[in-house]
Formats: sequence, C-alpha cells, structure tokens
Amino acid sequence: MNTLPIALTPKTVLLIGAGKSAALKAKNLYEGGCELLIVAKEIKDAYFDDKTVIKEAFRLSHAKNCDVVVNATGDEELSKLLWENRKKDGFLLNCVDMPKFCDFYFQAIFKNHDLCVGVGTSGTSPKYAQFIRNLIAAIVSKKPKKFYENMRAKRERGDTYIHHENAQVLLIGCGTGSIENLTIKALKAINSIDVAMIDALVGKEITDLLPKECIKIDVSKQKGCHKFSQNEINEMLLKYAKQGLRVGRLKGGDPALFGRVFEEASFLTQEGVSVEMINGVSSVFTGSLAGGITPTLRGLSAGALIVSAHLKESRFNDDWIDILKGFPYTVIVLMAYSFASKITQKAEETGINLDIPSAFVSRIDSTEQTTVIGNLGRLEEMAKMCDKPAILIIGKAVSQYSKMPFSGKMIVLK
Amino acid sequence: MNTLPIALTPKTVLLIGAGKSAALKAKNLYEGGCELLIVAKEIKDAYFDDKTVIKEAFRLSHAKNCDVVVNATGDEELSKLLWENRKKDGFLLNCVDMPKFCDFYFQAIFKNHDLCVGVGTSGTSPKYAQFIRNLIAAIVSKKPKKFYENMRAKRERGDTYIHHENAQVLLIGCGTGSIENLTIKALKAINSIDVAMIDALVGKEITDLLPKECIKIDVSKQKGCHKFSQNEINEMLLKYAKQGLRVGRLKGGDPALFGRVFEEASFLTQEGVSVEMINGVSSVFTGSLAGGITPTLRGLSAGALIVSAHLKESRFNDDWIDILKGFPYTVIVLMAYSFASKITQKAEETGINLDIPSAFVSRIDSTEQTTVIGNLGRLEEMAKMCDKPAILIIGKAVSQYSKMPFSGKMIVLK
Repeated sequence: MNTLPIALTPKTVLLIGAGKSAALKAKNLYEGGCELLIVAKEIKDAYFDDKTVIKEAFRLSHAKNCDVVVNATGDEELSKLLWENRKKDGFLLNCVDMPKFCDFYFQAIFKNHDLCVGVGTSGTSPKYAQFIRNLIAAIVSKKPKKFYENMRAKRERGDTYIHHENAQVLLIGCGTGSIENLTIKALKAINSIDVAMIDALVGKEITDLLPKECIKIDVSKQKGCHKFSQNEINEMLLKYAKQGLRVGRLKGGDPALFGRVFEEASFLTQEGVSVEMINGVSSVFTGSLAGGITPTLRGLSAGALIVSAHLKESRFNDDWIDILKGFPYTVIVLMAYSFASKITQKAEETGINLDIPSAFVSRIDSTEQTTVIGNLGRLEEMAKMCDKPAILIIGKAVSQYSKMPFSGKMIVLK
Repeated sequence: MNTLPIALTPKTVLLIGAGKSAALKAKNLYEGGCELLIVAKEIKDAYFDDKTVIKEAFRLSHAKNCDVVVNATGDEELSKLLWENRKKDGFLLNCVDMPKFCDFYFQAIFKNHDLCVGVGTSGTSPKYAQFIRNLIAAIVSKKPKKFYENMRAKRERGDTYIHHENAQVLLIGCGTGSIENLTIKALKAINSIDVAMIDALVGKEITDLLPKECIKIDVSKQKGCHKFSQNEINEMLLKYAKQGLRVGRLKGGDPALFGRVFEEASFLTQEGVSVEMINGVSSVFTGSLAGGITPTLRGLSAGALIVSAHLKESRFNDDWIDILKGFPYTVIVLMAYSFASKITQKAEETGINLDIPSAFVSRIDSTEQTTVIGNLGRLEEMAKMCDKPAILIIGKAVSQYSKMPFSGKMIVLK
C-alpha cells in the first residue's frame, strides 16, 4: 500500500490500552515529543506502572482534546467507533494491527538531534523495517548537537555548501565498481563532495552517487593518450581546494596500490591543503576470491606479491618476471592483459617453469566477470577467452580453484 | 524540534497554491497515493498545466472534505486562519516554510514497493536530509515486488527468519575495526545473519551491528591457546547451515589474506553448502596510508609483498626474511610485533642491510593508532613505542613518510 512518510510535530495523543503493544507505541510517541493521555481498564504491562493511567472504560469524550488517538486494545468494535468519529472529532487514528482503521502507521525510527528517519513497510514486515533502520543507524554517524546548530546557521546565512566544516581533498578508493564493494567511509565521502575528479576505473554505479550539483571532471588516462598530466591533475585539485570546495579524487580499487597517492597527497600537503585518504577494496583480492583462488593458502603460499605489468605510458614492465623463479608466494599482476604473450615469452627466456598455474580474472565485479584457469605458458590463449581489465594470478595456490566456490563465469584450459 | 515520523495512509489533500513549492509538495503527495484538490488564483508553475486546478480564492469550505491541507501560497494570514480552524474542520495542516503553522513536515523520501523511508531535519537542512536520503538509496538495494510479497507471505505463516531466501554461509571480511571501513556488502551481510562465528580481530563496533536475536559464537584463537580447532569451526559452520540458518563467519580485514578462507570454503562446498565470500579492507593498506606510507611509489617500489611472521600456533615464521636481500618492493609483514627482535636478528644473520627504512603501524583504525618510523635494525626499540596488533612495513617507500599526511600518532626514531 502506498503511504506518505511525514514528521508529525508534537501532539496530544490519547492512547487506549496499557498492555505490551500500547507500551511500544507509548515509547515511540514520547520520543516524538507527544503528550499522552492514557485510558485503560487495567494495566497489563509494567511499563505503565509509573505512568498516569485513567482506569476507565473508553468514552468518546476522552478523545475530545486530542489530535491523535491510538487504540492498542485490539478491540475491533472500538476501532469502528473511532473510525466513524475521527473526522468529526478532528483526530488522526491508528488502531494497532488493524490497517483498515488506520490514518497512519508507526515506523521504525532512527534519531539524532534534528535528524529523524522513519522506516516502514506498510505492515509487510516490521522485522525488515528494523533491518533497514539498523543499516541506516550504522551508516549515519551520530553528530553532536552543535553540528545541527551550525548547519541551521549556515542555512540561515544562505551558504551553498552546508554539510562540511573545512575545505579539503579526499583521495577516495572507490573499490571494484559496484556500490556493494564500496566502504561506508567512501560512500559518505562521495555523497559529500563539491568537485569530483574521476579516474577511468571508477564504475558508473559509483559516479551516479555524486550529488547533482557536484562538478564532475573525467581525468581518466587511456594508454598513450593522456587527457591530463599528473601535474595538471595536481594543479586542479589545488585550485578547487583553494576555492574552499570539498574536492574528491575518485580512484578505482585501493589507492594504496598503484593509486599515485604519493604524487597527489605529498603535493597538496606541501601546499597546505588538508588531505584525507580513504582505502578501498582492491580488484586484486575481490578478483582472487571471485575466481576461487585464495592468494595465501597453507602449504602452498604464505604470502602475496602485487605488481603491475604497466607502469608508465603503454610501456611493458617486466622487472618482476625473474622473481618468479622458485618464488614461494602467489604473484598478482595488474594491467597484465595486454602483455599476456610478452609475459610468457619473457618468462621462457628467463628460464621460469611455464607450468606454474595461472589465472586471468577479468571484468571483476561486473556481470561479465570471467575467470580463465591455465598456466604461465598459455597466457595469450587465456587472454583471448576473456577481456580487459583483468588481473593475472600466478602461483601454486591457483591449482586449488576447483575445490572453491567462485562467482561469474569460469573457463578451464584443457 | 522533536517530531514523530509516521506513514500516512492515502488521504484527500487540499493543496492551496500552484507555484514552484506547491509543485514539489504535489509530487510528494501523489507518490504517497493521495488524492489532490488544488485551489489557486493562478497557475505559476508549468507542472500544473495538465492538472485540474480550481481557479478561485481560497474559502474554508474548500477544506470541508479534506483530511490534509497544504498551504503553499506563502500567505501568512491564510495560514493563521487555517491553523485556527484545523481542529474544528478535522484536517491536518502544513503551511510551507512556516513551522509554527505545521502539524507535520514533509520529508525526503526513498521508496521501493512496500518499503518507505522518510528523512527529515525539522527544517534545519533540507539539503542534509537529501544527503542522508541518497546514502540510504545507495545502500538499500531495490528489490522486485515479489521480494515483498514473499516476505508478507512468510510473516503470515509465522516464519522466524524472513529476509533471506536460502540458508548459506557468508565468509565476511569485516575490515579494520570501524564501521566506516566496512563495505556495504559486509554491512548488509552482518545485519542479516542468524548465526555469527566471530574471529579475534573483529571490532566491537562491528559485532554491535549483529541482530539482537543472532546467535553469537566467539571463535577467536589466542596464540598457544586455541579455543576451537579449524575442524571444530568447520563442523559448527556446517551444523548451523544444515539447520537452514544463515551463518556468518566474521573475519578481520580481508579474508583473501591469511583468512583461512580455503579451509572453510572448500570444506563447505564439498558438503554442498552454498558459500559467499565478501572481501574487506585490510589493515595492510589502511595501516600503510594511516602511517603516511604508500606501498607502491614511483622509482622506489613498483610492488608490495604481504607475508605473515606467524603462521601456525605461536611459532615464528622467518621464511620471508632472506627475500629482503636486494628486494625491490615494499614488504608488509602481519603479526610481526611479537617477533621484532627475532626479525632483526635473523636479518642480520642473513646479511640483510639493516638500514632499510621500516615502520610499525599499530592499533590501526582505533584512537590509539600509532606509527613508529625507524629501520630494520631497530625493530625491538620501535616495538616498545607502540602496541599490538601492528603491521610492519619494510622498504625504501617508507623513507618518504615525512612528505605525506598521516593519521593518529607518529613517532620517528632519531
């Protein structure tokens, strides 16, 4: 059923009944600032022991000066009587568990000073409403009263940007593409910025979260075709921050891994700009588990090395390949897709065992996510069966994939 | 101001005015299933061009059969008149932007079939209400109508566990301790489980999120004092899953790194239990950035190796130390705190350069977070200045800490 959520200003409420369900409603009503007149034949719940209860049978005259009436007695005849008189007597009616005699439903509530959130399911599932309320309570940080007072003052002054105190740059790890893999800190940051400078691997689901009025700048770098140099990006971050705006630098995955955080954060720090760095979930690890591979695995790999096959421009980085010789840990290679045949070739030249189990996991965290299981000698063949972007996982731990759950599509080379 | 959030069942509403703010309210009211009677001297917003508008000056008789009246004209005299008559004529009043003539406030709304969430700030900041509404929209996945129908049917049948379809085991990466570093997927998972089996490094903020009725089992392993063996844990996971319960296995950090995911997921998969693995943010990376250290850094480190100094029981694992000789990448060592002096000793014996810049970052994501900067030769001294749990970062990239922002406390050895 369609409903309209509203916030009722404090009302005088007649509560009929003094049992368990009346107690639940009374708590809600008191928290909403209401004044209660409680009428009940007898007290059935200890909650009412210290409350003033008029111990009488209900008469319509009890409702005379009340704005709202809540019938928590379960008495359907009474509900009918109230329903017929509610317009004439000018009160809003809720008969507990009798939706057809309800002008309104109660909701699961989260409050923090001026902020008030109500969750309802039109009676479909109070438990689900609680679940959603609990999610909300977890993500909405409780703020001191002063926060709301400041916000009110800013609004009265007509400030445009109101929910942050100091202009700053946030380097935000945006995870692997879906909102689900975003951290709560990143979610809040993304929702709060005035300017967003966005990298290529940041998913559309994420950029769709940006506030409508946020200035959005795509600074993605395609191989061999730089849109903006690092210097230009730094200067833009600085420019907007100095304008007093809250600037977000949206990066795919975790900025701690090949995120050029040092370049940006050290520059801004030197310029006196406050910088916050927000970690994200990296495709290195979501990709591994999605492909049924645990980078660390007792007896097979007691560690994980993360490298990139592409460091500057479109140049192939092969410095990491000779380390594969007898290396006891899982190696996870970013940006390896386009260099698949080169990696095999270089490994062969270096005398690395080409039988080392290897996997590409591509289009991680998307509906096209695909894992291809093979070995170091067959990377080119494997790459043809998937797409970029992809991570390449090399090591004995890959061999155990068949015992593990995985997600998306999986192809195993014969 | 205190308010009570409620969900109003569909009402007949008199809307006075046909300008911009009337249009905003009209949209809200229609979405809430209300029937509108619109009275205005003239149409000032194109939204009303295709609506039936009674082009008259307002008279009290217009309100006669209405449950709710919204005055969107900005006319304060009219508001006063309505306020005085609202009880007698039995309607609920909202005069836009005149809180003293309001029985209720409108809210920022998120809807998905039966689910309805309203966010308000008692007028403190409509923009902040929007911000919170947008956060909620991001975390609450939109479900098909069938989801709500099933939920209603289950409630009517009296099922205890209602918001999941299939019993399964979730291996949940719980991040570094704070809710802020939790992913949205993990947040939802934690809020939805019937049974939680909890590791030592899962923070209290996180376990506090567990549903009240959730069965909570602490399976933390203290060094040398196993509470539960891996086999026992596996058997418990299986037992509860086979009872048809939704079982969550809460792990600190990212389960892909030393999370024993293989042991549990392969066992459960073999037993026919459906397993979902949820990545988390690892202290390896939050700790690095918190300490002002980027594990990958152009010219200094083109990769990161993650190992653990403690693999089985309380035994010291030093297999990784000889790799430090000329190793071009940053090495991040988990569980290194208790073995600080042993690591230095072994490095010395192996002929590793003891000047390699090193840092402990301890009590990550807590108010006691501390970074100690020194070198490989002085780990024991460094450990004494912080606490466990801590990560140890070894490599040239550590040397750049002073150019970077950091969080928590920082101590630099002279």
